[in-house]
Amino acid sequence: MANITKKVSWSSRADDSNATGEGTPLLNGSEQLGYSRQQSGGSISQIGRVSTVNMDEEITSEEDSLKGRPKEITHNEKLLSLKYESLDYDNSENQLFLEEERRMSYLGFRCLEISRWVVCGLIGFLTGLIACFIDIMVEQLTGLKYYVVKENIEKFTAGGGLSISLILWAVLNSAFVMVGAIIVAFFEPIAGGSGIPQIKCYLNGVKIPRVVRLKTLLVKVAGVICSVAGGLVVGKEGPMIHSGAVVAAGVSQGRSTSLKRDFKIFEYFRRDTEKRDFVSAGAAAGVSAAFGAPVGGVLFSLEEAASYWNQMLTWRIFFASMISTFTLNFFLSVYNKNPGELSNPGLINFGSFDRNSSSEYNLYEIPLFIGMGAIGGLLGALFNALNYWLTIFRIRYIHRPCLQVMEAMLVAAVTATVSFIMIYFSNACQPLDVVQGEDYPLQLYCDDGEYNSMATTFFNRPEKSVQNLFHNPPGSYHPLTLGVFTITYFFLACWTYGLAVSAGVFIPSLLIGAAWGRLIGIMLPTLSSTNSTGQIWADPGKYALIGAAAQLGGIVRMTLSLTVILIEATGNVTYGLPLMLVLMTAKIVGDYFEEGLYDIHIKLQSVPFVHSEAPPTSHWLTAREVMSSPVTSFNRVERVGTIVDLLSNTSTNHNGFPVVVSNANGEEPAKLCGLILRSQLIVLLKHKVFVELARSKLTRRKLQLKDFRDAYPRFPPIQSIHVSQDERECMMDLTEFMNPTPYTVPQETSLPRVYKLFRALGLRHLVVVDDSNRVVGLVTRKDLARYHLGKHGLEELQLAQT
Amino acid sequence: MANITKKVSWSSRADDSNATGEGTPLLNGSEQLGYSRQQSGGSISQIGRVSTVNMDEEITSEEDSLKGRPKEITHNEKLLSLKYESLDYDNSENQLFLEEERRMSYLGFRCLEISRWVVCGLIGFLTGLIACFIDIMVEQLTGLKYYVVKENIEKFTAGGGLSISLILWAVLNSAFVMVGAIIVAFFEPIAGGSGIPQIKCYLNGVKIPRVVRLKTLLVKVAGVICSVAGGLVVGKEGPMIHSGAVVAAGVSQGRSTSLKRDFKIFEYFRRDTEKRDFVSAGAAAGVSAAFGAPVGGVLFSLEEAASYWNQMLTWRIFFASMISTFTLNFFLSVYNKNPGELSNPGLINFGSFDRNSSSEYNLYEIPLFIGMGAIGGLLGALFNALNYWLTIFRIRYIHRPCLQVMEAMLVAAVTATVSFIMIYFSNACQPLDVVQGEDYPLQLYCDDGEYNSMATTFFNRPEKSVQNLFHNPPGSYHPLTLGVFTITYFFLACWTYGLAVSAGVFIPSLLIGAAWGRLIGIMLPTLSSTNSTGQIWADPGKYALIGAAAQLGGIVRMTLSLTVILIEATGNVTYGLPLMLVLMTAKIVGDYFEEGLYDIHIKLQSVPFVHSEAPPTSHWLTAREVMSSPVTSFNRVERVGTIVDLLSNTSTNHNGFPVVVSNANGEEPAKLCGLILRSQLIVLLKHKVFVELARSKLTRRKLQLKDFRDAYPRFPPIQSIHVSQDERECMMDLTEFMNPTPYTVPQETSLPRVYKLFRALGLRHLVVVDDSNRVVGLVTRKDLARYHLGKHGLEELQLAQT
Repeated sequence: MANITKKVSWSSRADDSNATGEGTPLLNGSEQLGYSRQQSGGSISQIGRVSTVNMDEEITSEEDSLKGRPKEITHNEKLLSLKYESLDYDNSENQLFLEEERRMSYLGFRCLEISRWVVCGLIGFLTGLIACFIDIMVEQLTGLKYYVVKENIEKFTAGGGLSISLILWAVLNSAFVMVGAIIVAFFEPIAGGSGIPQIKCYLNGVKIPRVVRLKTLLVKVAGVICSVAGGLVVGKEGPMIHSGAVVAAGVSQGRSTSLKRDFKIFEYFRRDTEKRDFVSAGAAAGVSAAFGAPVGGVLFSLEEAASYWNQMLTWRIFFASMISTFTLNFFLSVYNKNPGELSNPGLINFGSFDRNSSSEYNLYEIPLFIGMGAIGGLLGALFNALNYWLTIFRIRYIHRPCLQVMEAMLVAAVTATVSFIMIYFSNACQPLDVVQGEDYPLQLYCDDGEYNSMATTFFNRPEKSVQNLFHNPPGSYHPLTLGVFTITYFFLACWTYGLAVSAGVFIPSLLIGAAWGRLIGIMLPTLSSTNSTGQIWADPGKYALIGAAAQLGGIVRMTLSLTVILIEATGNVTYGLPLMLVLMTAKIVGDYFEEGLYDIHIKLQSVPFVHSEAPPTSHWLTAREVMSSPVTSFNRVERVGTIVDLLSNTSTNHNGFPVVVSNANGEEPAKLCGLILRSQLIVLLKHKVFVELARSKLTRRKLQLKDFRDAYPRFPPIQSIHVSQDERECMMDLTEFMNPTPYTVPQETSLPRVYKLFRALGLRHLVVVDDSNRVVGLVTRKDLARYHLGKHGLEELQLAQT
Repeated sequence: MANITKKVSWSSRADDSNATGEGTPLLNGSEQLGYSRQQSGGSISQIGRVSTVNMDEEITSEEDSLKGRPKEITHNEKLLSLKYESLDYDNSENQLFLEEERRMSYLGFRCLEISRWVVCGLIGFLTGLIACFIDIMVEQLTGLKYYVVKENIEKFTAGGGLSISLILWAVLNSAFVMVGAIIVAFFEPIAGGSGIPQIKCYLNGVKIPRVVRLKTLLVKVAGVICSVAGGLVVGKEGPMIHSGAVVAAGVSQGRSTSLKRDFKIFEYFRRDTEKRDFVSAGAAAGVSAAFGAPVGGVLFSLEEAASYWNQMLTWRIFFASMISTFTLNFFLSVYNKNPGELSNPGLINFGSFDRNSSSEYNLYEIPLFIGMGAIGGLLGALFNALNYWLTIFRIRYIHRPCLQVMEAMLVAAVTATVSFIMIYFSNACQPLDVVQGEDYPLQLYCDDGEYNSMATTFFNRPEKSVQNLFHNPPGSYHPLTLGVFTITYFFLACWTYGLAVSAGVFIPSLLIGAAWGRLIGIMLPTLSSTNSTGQIWADPGKYALIGAAAQLGGIVRMTLSLTVILIEATGNVTYGLPLMLVLMTAKIVGDYFEEGLYDIHIKLQSVPFVHSEAPPTSHWLTAREVMSSPVTSFNRVERVGTIVDLLSNTSTNHNGFPVVVSNANGEEPAKLCGLILRSQLIVLLKHKVFVELARSKLTRRKLQLKDFRDAYPRFPPIQSIHVSQDERECMMDLTEFMNPTPYTVPQETSLPRVYKLFRALGLRHLVVVDDSNRVVGLVTRKDLARYHLGKHGLEELQLAQT
């Protein structure tokens, strides 16, 4: 099972993770840890009991239904992987850092601040450009494809032989998708999917290998163009968030490790704290470009990332968002030969909802909206559950790249076939003049001057289809068309999400929701045709909007940011209240059955994700029970050999080490005096900063913060550093390099209190001390992420080396 | 000086603050503290030096210009008052609390969560109702007034004797304002002004006495109606934020101490942590009702309040905001005989900016907008500087309530006179049909079918004037009218802000800015009439909007939240980028000269306000230098007499006490084992929780968390608790009641690190310990708020008992 999971995990190719030293586990938290805690108290053993019972039940039911499956696989989401490292969002304020900060004048800080703004402006600009590039490429390619297929269909409509058209369509789609799937599956698996779960994890503080590299960006952009052009049921909005994040991580470092270019700028930003801030800005810029929602972008970043509210940072994020929307808007207006016309922000916009007076809603419609929210929640939960099982299936059977490519091609061909069949058998003809500006009206078997309305929804960029569902006048769609479309699209979208292509789920969700929403809008007046109020329900576009929101909310379960994104996309604050109520209902109903789609995929990867608050019933857990112990500590002046041995020990792969001073009487445990990171030790070893050498070579250059920054973020693994036998006997003085003031908590601190400190300050290691400041344990991300509220109360996930 | 400051301070009447025990200082931080620190290092003495130089300079210049002034008065804003207490945003997780939490089931937590939502809904609903009430009352009263005055003027226009009209107008205005000023000055001075600085302070963690009481709300609502009806240059939007906050603080506690009613609900919320969360929601609901900007409201609350991002809280705040806008909107639509027409959210809305196609802007206009932002920043700084000197003057000379009432009446009369003179001498006649729906068109000396355009701006609710400036077609206003109006209004608004009336500064700022913005919009085409592009500048409404944003930004210097508020008020995201750029420019330019208006008033009150980040150049300060020491500690089991004596000591009026256990060998300082608050000790003393009594009366009821909640928030002063001589010899066991896990930092922690911990967790007391966990100092709000970045680098404010 370990192997299988590794194959399809985000961190992807198994050969990679160990060789680069990136996939090394953080703690000596073997599975025994989880069990050893059961002894420490009556109430705690309850956890063990519950999860054990749970395990038994599921295994039993598994054995009944599916013999021969590996048993562990169903518990994939009940595990917490140890292979993910954390990011250091807490500055290591060692002497070098403090010296640098103290040397810096006020002017220096001003310059830093200005360069932060410049970087954010650049991030916004580049993200906007990328969005623009994707949009234009997709439009060109799909335009070409639709033109060819339409011509072909029209050629064969009269004479028969439409099956040739079908084959042409399917082959075209599969070809596009094949390219997209090959680059994702073979070159950069992390670029698959929407990238939102990965960015959520990154901002949460989990190091997902290769998630913000240049190569990922290139594959992502090319992949999303291919998959959208290939007619898959996907959107290009989600990937923009990932793209923005990669741009941010790249620009802010002032160098590209992949291209081996160092521009010697922004060196101050080469640490996790600063980089995270910029990645937040990049993600926001991505949202902003995707939906034309700069405020929504800021709120998305805050919702996912912010632990500590920083006014200047928020303002900078907003700046990046604004620039991004503006850039996209401006270049698209130039491309559309209408420069300066800036009314189309975002890759998708919902069109203006205030032109027609029927856009208002009445008080008595609110219960209807809430009901639609509930439907959205139910359908969303169904979608997520189906996708969950599909993902489990994929993890088990479709983990080889060539199989992944073949599955993607199959989906593309099936999508084309289904579309074709639906167009063929639908006789929903509409007069041509109803809809202006239909790009590819397909006549098929309709009379002259009419077109096939089913074909409209398929022969269109999905963004345009959403707009049509919102804004086309009543009567544009036949109810049956909408019903069949909803069902087909629902299953196609569900099948598509999780393929090894780069693609998002926003647009499909909106489209499904808009379709059934409009269907409800059409059906309602007929239901209540007896009373005279049926007439005001005549605008099904409003119900399409509500349905779209409900479906999207039911699938992704974002809250505040999604409401604001939708408000901004409709450009009308009047819909704020209904949208909020709908999203809330969808979330509440959906959460009752199944988690959000992104959370499911995060859990399936066993990522140690720290939520914003501790589970409510966790007050009876204290740091003593939560922490990992015993802790491996170093002395302030430590023998090199000891350090090398400890770092090389693959079974206890720690990343942070408390530094202690022993008492005069040498009692254990010793007093805490600092904290040092693996990455710092590696730089020290590499530069051979040994006490003996410092004495012998007086002219030796003192190690500076720059040396640490140059090594960031790809610190070499310990195996690549050669330490001779003589050097092993040298001593290393850690005083100058350790963080002398790590945050600590006493052993009696309750879990919510530990959680709050950890999350609010973005910590990686929290030292637990006794009443004499002696180290007794260490709390890391995994120790907190382990506890979650299941259906039977507080549950504890197990740690695994997968 | 101390007396003077006290008289006009927010916490107001001098007789009050000591009697109720609310104004007691927090720490033994006498002014010597500030000086004693100068010895600890070379670099630190720099602070003392710089601020001394500064002081000398100012005194010298003072002596030149104004002899006989009390010298200290100019340093009012260089002091930090000790009279303000802090709020406890960090839960005291003592045994009682933990027991309660552990007893609570998961269902209990769900119920709590649901009641939080209910409370937020109530807050939104009531805030919306209050906004609605204010709006309708103001409309009725001003309508009546304008009708009377207009009739009168028309009666006298032909026959002469307009001076009678003037007197009538002035008397009417003064009468309204007199009522408004009397209730503020005599009954509840804290209700004066907009209340935004007070709410900012409250959310920051400073306890401003009586700021969230029912009486304050009543006076605020009545006061704002009077001052707006009295024709003062004020808005009713700012006070809504304060009103919302009071509603929230009241509703969430489930009782009214003023009315002596306890509904026995929401008892769980009776502590500062929960109350602050609800007050954030209330403030957001206020913003939302005022501007129809629910998202802006959320961001306002976050910008001012949030230290720690809590997803559920933000979502609740958003809910309250939405309900508030919706309620206001709905009831106003009913009042306007158009129920269900929900397109007018907020007390002010800017009207729709997307009807006319000219609402778009071009790339080359952006530099123009930035220039206008700079003008706004300059004018804003001028406004703030003038208001600053005026406030200093008021603090010194106009501190008696009757004088305050007279000043307010004078301003009202002058406002009426100036308006009248301007209408009288203006001959800006406009044909009547240009503007539809003018409520009170005044013909005066214009021809039939025309009206006086100057009168329009004055004879109108200011909100309507702003809308007119934005939307009236080109040619509605004469440039001279706008110029004169700008200047007059600027000085009137400046004079008005800070009067003892309840009123806001948003609308006047918007009006001033809209006037000069529109003026620029009108002038620009004439300047560039040679080229053909002049024609596209024909829409001066766009420039009015930009000008309004620039002026408002230049005065209040809010950033993200203001941008979003303005975007929401215009209902058009297209203007996002220009608005953001304008507000940024206005802030940068303005900050160069003078602080924001609210910050000025906060500083003038010497409030210890903790900003979101430490000053950038403060890395060389450590906890050792910042902390207050020595610290008064208690033993775990302490003699009652010792406790009573310490609490009664008015010179060292501590509020938090570390609890320590002495070593076996009794060495000092002793080891930290907890932290207990003055309020907790007082409840313990009141209930006589003594070890001896517990032994004697076995049946005695155990003290519960409920007893602490019942006493919250008005804990009795120590003087009111009688302790007999026998009881003084009893012992008190603090183990159960102290917080056993207070946050601590080592002495070497740098100031930014201390700051971050303090601010992120909303602490009140941060214990500084040595390497053996022995208490060496205590960091409180004043120790951090003291450091700020002045023009000469890092400066240290002095603490004073004012």
